[in-house]
Amino acid sequence: MSAFDELMAFQHQTEALSQVAGRLGWDQETVMPRGAAPQRAEEMGALEAVLHARRTDPRVGDWLAAIDDGALDAVGAAKLRHIRRSYARNTKLPEDLATALAKLTSRSQGIWAEARANNDVAHFLPTLKEVVALKREAAAALADGGDLYDALLEDYEPSTSAAEIGAMFDRMRPRLVALLDRVMGATAPTPLSGQFAEVGQLRVSDKLAAAFGYNSDHGRIDKAVHPFSSGSGLDVRITTRVAEHDPFNCFYSTIHEVGHATYEQNIDHAYLLTPLGEGVSMGVHESQSRIYENQLGRSRAFTSWLFGQMQDQFGAMNVTDPEAFYRAVNRVHPGYIRTEADEVQYNLHVMLRFDLERQLVAGTLEVDDLEAAWNQRFAADFGVAVDVPANGVLQDVHWSVGLFGYFPTYSLGNVYAGCLYQALRKAVPELEADLAKGDPSAALAWLRDNLQTHGGLYEPRDVIARACGFEPSEAPLLDYLDAKFGDLYGV
Amino acid sequence: MSAFDELMAFQHQTEALSQVAGRLGWDQETVMPRGAAPQRAEEMGALEAVLHARRTDPRVGDWLAAIDDGALDAVGAAKLRHIRRSYARNTKLPEDLATALAKLTSRSQGIWAEARANNDVAHFLPTLKEVVALKREAAAALADGGDLYDALLEDYEPSTSAAEIGAMFDRMRPRLVALLDRVMGATAPTPLSGQFAEVGQLRVSDKLAAAFGYNSDHGRIDKAVHPFSSGSGLDVRITTRVAEHDPFNCFYSTIHEVGHATYEQNIDHAYLLTPLGEGVSMGVHESQSRIYENQLGRSRAFTSWLFGQMQDQFGAMNVTDPEAFYRAVNRVHPGYIRTEADEVQYNLHVMLRFDLERQLVAGTLEVDDLEAAWNQRFAADFGVAVDVPANGVLQDVHWSVGLFGYFPTYSLGNVYAGCLYQALRKAVPELEADLAKGDPSAALAWLRDNLQTHGGLYEPRDVIARACGFEPSEAPLLDYLDAKFGDLYGV
Repeated sequence: MSAFDELMAFQHQTEALSQVAGRLGWDQETVMPRGAAPQRAEEMGALEAVLHARRTDPRVGDWLAAIDDGALDAVGAAKLRHIRRSYARNTKLPEDLATALAKLTSRSQGIWAEARANNDVAHFLPTLKEVVALKREAAAALADGGDLYDALLEDYEPSTSAAEIGAMFDRMRPRLVALLDRVMGATAPTPLSGQFAEVGQLRVSDKLAAAFGYNSDHGRIDKAVHPFSSGSGLDVRITTRVAEHDPFNCFYSTIHEVGHATYEQNIDHAYLLTPLGEGVSMGVHESQSRIYENQLGRSRAFTSWLFGQMQDQFGAMNVTDPEAFYRAVNRVHPGYIRTEADEVQYNLHVMLRFDLERQLVAGTLEVDDLEAAWNQRFAADFGVAVDVPANGVLQDVHWSVGLFGYFPTYSLGNVYAGCLYQALRKAVPELEADLAKGDPSAALAWLRDNLQTHGGLYEPRDVIARACGFEPSEAPLLDYLDAKFGDLYGV
Repeated sequence: MSAFDELMAFQHQTEALSQVAGRLGWDQETVMPRGAAPQRAEEMGALEAVLHARRTDPRVGDWLAAIDDGALDAVGAAKLRHIRRSYARNTKLPEDLATALAKLTSRSQGIWAEARANNDVAHFLPTLKEVVALKREAAAALADGGDLYDALLEDYEPSTSAAEIGAMFDRMRPRLVALLDRVMGATAPTPLSGQFAEVGQLRVSDKLAAAFGYNSDHGRIDKAVHPFSSGSGLDVRITTRVAEHDPFNCFYSTIHEVGHATYEQNIDHAYLLTPLGEGVSMGVHESQSRIYENQLGRSRAFTSWLFGQMQDQFGAMNVTDPEAFYRAVNRVHPGYIRTEADEVQYNLHVMLRFDLERQLVAGTLEVDDLEAAWNQRFAADFGVAVDVPANGVLQDVHWSVGLFGYFPTYSLGNVYAGCLYQALRKAVPELEADLAKGDPSAALAWLRDNLQTHGGLYEPRDVIARACGFEPSEAPLLDYLDAKFGDLYGV
């Protein structure tokens, strides 16, 4: 066997073991017995140790050194690019630092949860200081003298930079704030109200999953506290949740996770258990979940179909016609919580976190000053004062587990979704008529063939540009939001 | 760290990974999406490769060589005993033979299933010949010049021999055949008949699991095609099955698996993820499942309580009083299938397989002559001619996956259950009154404290002898069967 073949055989097993770790995570969030947690931590720890040892195995370095990249075809070269990147990162991080971070972040999540439950920022700050310090140390090890934040960002969104994202956010923020101001000055639509039984919600949710192309032969849907998608290839499972007074929570969680899951399901099976067999970045992943959820799922056309489905399932509602239903689905409402935000406000939440975490990583903002900075920025962008820390600086889990550099990928996903939607409307002229019939299949086939199938073959930004036929920018998203909410609110 | 400590730390991770493999198996049989099978095979293969590498890791040999067993306490010595045995076996088996066996037996199970479905023995024989040949080769590698069958048996029941078991079976068989003859000559009880809705069966099944001490904080119950128990320590899951016309199938499957599962759950938590943290042998495991199921669960006292539960759940039945119900539960019925056999016939099924597989492994019976040998023996012991191969030589999966040496542990479990029951009746004089109230908790506590808690601390036969206060033999089981069925059938 050549060095390339040996490396690929080794990598195949590593990918398979990584899928096993994902399956354990799914199990833990869905079916694991309550009392199994301490043993599960040991099991996960053992598996992660095996994975870490494989990702830093000196044989990988030897194989990489022996391979002539010039002799590889595009697919081989892409596989190598992923493995080189992963190996370089994993071997740069000192073993004791990696261990210290793993231990700290497994402990700190519980402390954050306690602090949030009690609205007690002070309880969390000493731990957050430790997390920030270790992440800065890790970033320095990874950065080779470059930007610390970029070094962290690369884990989630390779081939971009905080400077690029920051500049883009600076262009987006004024337009979003202006749109929000106009919308908040207009009359708010009537929200949907009432009780919607779980069994009925899950029936509609199953229809939505099927409509959005979820392949149940290669996945399953369960309930969990937090909706997520897990796994790649032939076993991609999702979860949803049910709030009896808010069926949109269930429906749009399902559509969102189906976007993530079908991306994984639709990757070319030739890439199964190779470095190309997973979605290429968090940003591209989020572009799929968000275009499914928002541009398609919250469109006037699709919600008119959904209105009929809900009437069939639940009978008469307080919202009595498709247009009022469309307005209820897309209602812009004041709120503190990112994960519950509407399309207009969502990215403003993300930008707030991005700016603050960039300063934390750079060392220009102290953890002690974080809450004040958060509250000041929130008031400026949203026109509302944060009432309690659980609605402010303590609301997201990310920082407690060291996920610095992750937040901007949410907005990047929205930006990419805006670009894809512009291209999609040209490619599928009958889109609106399809959606009004509850049938986005032509749109989904376009996304599958032009983006999802490629898996990790192209760099994140490149796969978007190839699919769209133009370089991605924030303009299509902002134009779409202005048009949609301008029309909806008459502003 | 000392060599002992290093070995234990290494072993801890191996045990944790082994639990992960078990969890994957559970997932596959219960919740895995249909289309995930090919990917799952890769995932399992990768994990098994990691486990095999750890079990044959040269460092284990070095640590074992460096440890002075004489300096260890009883617990440490027991841990070493398990690791030495496992390491010796795993390193004796040549890598290419282990790989060939794994590949063959993963393929041959499907061929066996096809053959059974079509009653086509010829379709299976060529593959079975390959399996027998490779298992004989493996046995030779393991046996060090000793008995081939003993070498295979050791995987499932260490510290016993085919000669010992064979001699015991020779003593058991005439008494069992004689009892069967008497019973078959008597009037058969009326069987339970009717339709019993799944939801009601599962409700009673849950009550039975709780009554028999299953800890749902450290486990869960699902439906599967074949009932099984999976996992150790804090996460021990069981499955059951439902046939609407035969609720006893569900109820006694549940009680049986709860026997296996509580054994695992009740092992001293100090042994968690050590070589002592699992049931010590298949025979001892089966002693727990069988005493729960038969001596306790099928007793006159307990079935009188179960009769009330069934009346509460299903209303009037064709069996109208507790004594008739007891007789229906314990009905001895002619049948070809081991897994459906009653207490009188079960061990005769096992002995048939033991004698045949012993000859196959010894080379004194050719695979081509196996069916004829089976049919002749079956007619002699059961007084009935086998009608089709699916009811004869093709009925069990074991040989197709190379499980030679496993069958006798089923009967050993029954023999041990007979011994334990004799001791238990002395230790818990109020047993019958307890069972009549549906409360076997005093009996279960005795089993927990005298047997289950020890995990792998003692050798299989020793832990039974310690619990019973006498050397185990077949006599208590045979006396129990003669008494129970003599009384029940008036013979």
